[in-house]
Amino acid sequence: MNKAKIGLIQMKVDEDKKSNLYKASKLITNIMLQNPDIVVLPEMFSCPYDNSYFPRYAEEEYEYTFNFLSNIAKENNIYLVAGSIPEEDNGKIYNTAYIFDRSGNKIAKHRKIHLFDIDIKNKQKFKESDTLTGGNNITIFDTEFGKIGLCICYDFRFPELTRLMVDKGAKAVIVPASFNMTTGPAHWDIMFKSRAIDNQIYTIGCSPARNYTSTYISYGHSIVVSPFGEIVCELDDKEGYITCEMDFDYLESIREELPLLAHRRKDIYAIIEK
Amino acid sequence: MNKAKIGLIQMKVDEDKKSNLYKASKLITNIMLQNPDIVVLPEMFSCPYDNSYFPRYAEEEYEYTFNFLSNIAKENNIYLVAGSIPEEDNGKIYNTAYIFDRSGNKIAKHRKIHLFDIDIKNKQKFKESDTLTGGNNITIFDTEFGKIGLCICYDFRFPELTRLMVDKGAKAVIVPASFNMTTGPAHWDIMFKSRAIDNQIYTIGCSPARNYTSTYISYGHSIVVSPFGEIVCELDDKEGYITCEMDFDYLESIREELPLLAHRRKDIYAIIEK
Repeated sequence: MNKAKIGLIQMKVDEDKKSNLYKASKLITNIMLQNPDIVVLPEMFSCPYDNSYFPRYAEEEYEYTFNFLSNIAKENNIYLVAGSIPEEDNGKIYNTAYIFDRSGNKIAKHRKIHLFDIDIKNKQKFKESDTLTGGNNITIFDTEFGKIGLCICYDFRFPELTRLMVDKGAKAVIVPASFNMTTGPAHWDIMFKSRAIDNQIYTIGCSPARNYTSTYISYGHSIVVSPFGEIVCELDDKEGYITCEMDFDYLESIREELPLLAHRRKDIYAIIEK
Repeated sequence: MNKAKIGLIQMKVDEDKKSNLYKASKLITNIMLQNPDIVVLPEMFSCPYDNSYFPRYAEEEYEYTFNFLSNIAKENNIYLVAGSIPEEDNGKIYNTAYIFDRSGNKIAKHRKIHLFDIDIKNKQKFKESDTLTGGNNITIFDTEFGKIGLCICYDFRFPELTRLMVDKGAKAVIVPASFNMTTGPAHWDIMFKSRAIDNQIYTIGCSPARNYTSTYISYGHSIVVSPFGEIVCELDDKEGYITCEMDFDYLESIREELPLLAHRRKDIYAIIEK
């Protein structure tokens, strides 16, 4: 039980919600030939990543898409980390990931904490806070392989959050994410590697495939990085899927040989949850 | 005043303290032809990086090596970040960096906080705590270019420390460091890039040159990384020196376009100094 096979679905998201859900389901049927334990969908896999779509595509928690995803988890006997979709609750919209266990039960839910408001001169602009509200909770969930943390895209920019998930016992952190053509080439691999190295965990990024007809073009390059910073598997920019193993005995050996977490000087500094 | 030229001295350290000091001085004379404002020496530049040497090469604060370095700073009208040397104080030995201003006055002193105790199977072993004592202070110093932070090698592994220096106003963090032939290729560049990206600062690593006759072989690759994660300059493994500019207007533009530090959710988490 010290190895978990993880599968990443890097799907190209189009304008039709139903066809996005159908495609997710079809790609999961295909990836099941490789027997993954955990399958991850990308950020906003049901909806184009654009403020004009979020309110129209949003659903409340137990509506159609939620049940559709729960059924997929149950039918395939997998943990399904359902990337994210726009969630409506009390008139507010969140960027939300649901996590289902092998029986299709929701075992966790993460609302993106850090909203992505960026304005790079002559390059990438985006202001999530125009339509979305940020969540307030740190998310980890239990599996038979140990605890796993989850955050969404921009959340992963903040080293405090990963550290707190690791302090709560996370041995892997899954990040449905949609970096763009500016931040992707500049920061994507480095961030997944450095969070993995600093915290001696597996890091997993799952992105939509690149779609040049979108207003926001995702970088792709869905990735799994080991606790020593090695890329275990990575996709290119196109639609596809990939599986690879996370070896938690290897993780323990890394922590024993180079005891970074134990060597923290907690008498000098601390990261606290408020 | 928004640009500072920084110079890195990547010297090969040999067994003779006096000849190491003479070499440092000679390389600084050479690098002065490029008019640096700040010159950095590597970790343990006066002493082979080996527990058997630290006690024998250690000096108290105002002894020979300290004065030798102060004079170099004054004569060349530079900030001298004097990598590190073994410092003796009250029967204990520290891995200590002194920082001198353009007049040769000591303006800061950092004692390595995190001691490097590592045991990678069939690869790198080292236990600094056999001979050294860890410091307890976070170090930043003032220049006409703004505040600069300093830590030594293994200290840089801990993201909390860089974050606290940045919260105290550091726009650059200088790291005299000696990664080895296991951790160097695996982690050196990634760490300098990721700390720079996460904190939107310049990061500067200054290593001894590779010396295959040492018991501990340094990786080299002294490096300066920009606040967006670009390598501004980097050496290879051989003895040499290099200068490049840190542009603090560019730093401010990065922080404006992608306001990572402002986007921290301080209502959810915080890094505190104890």
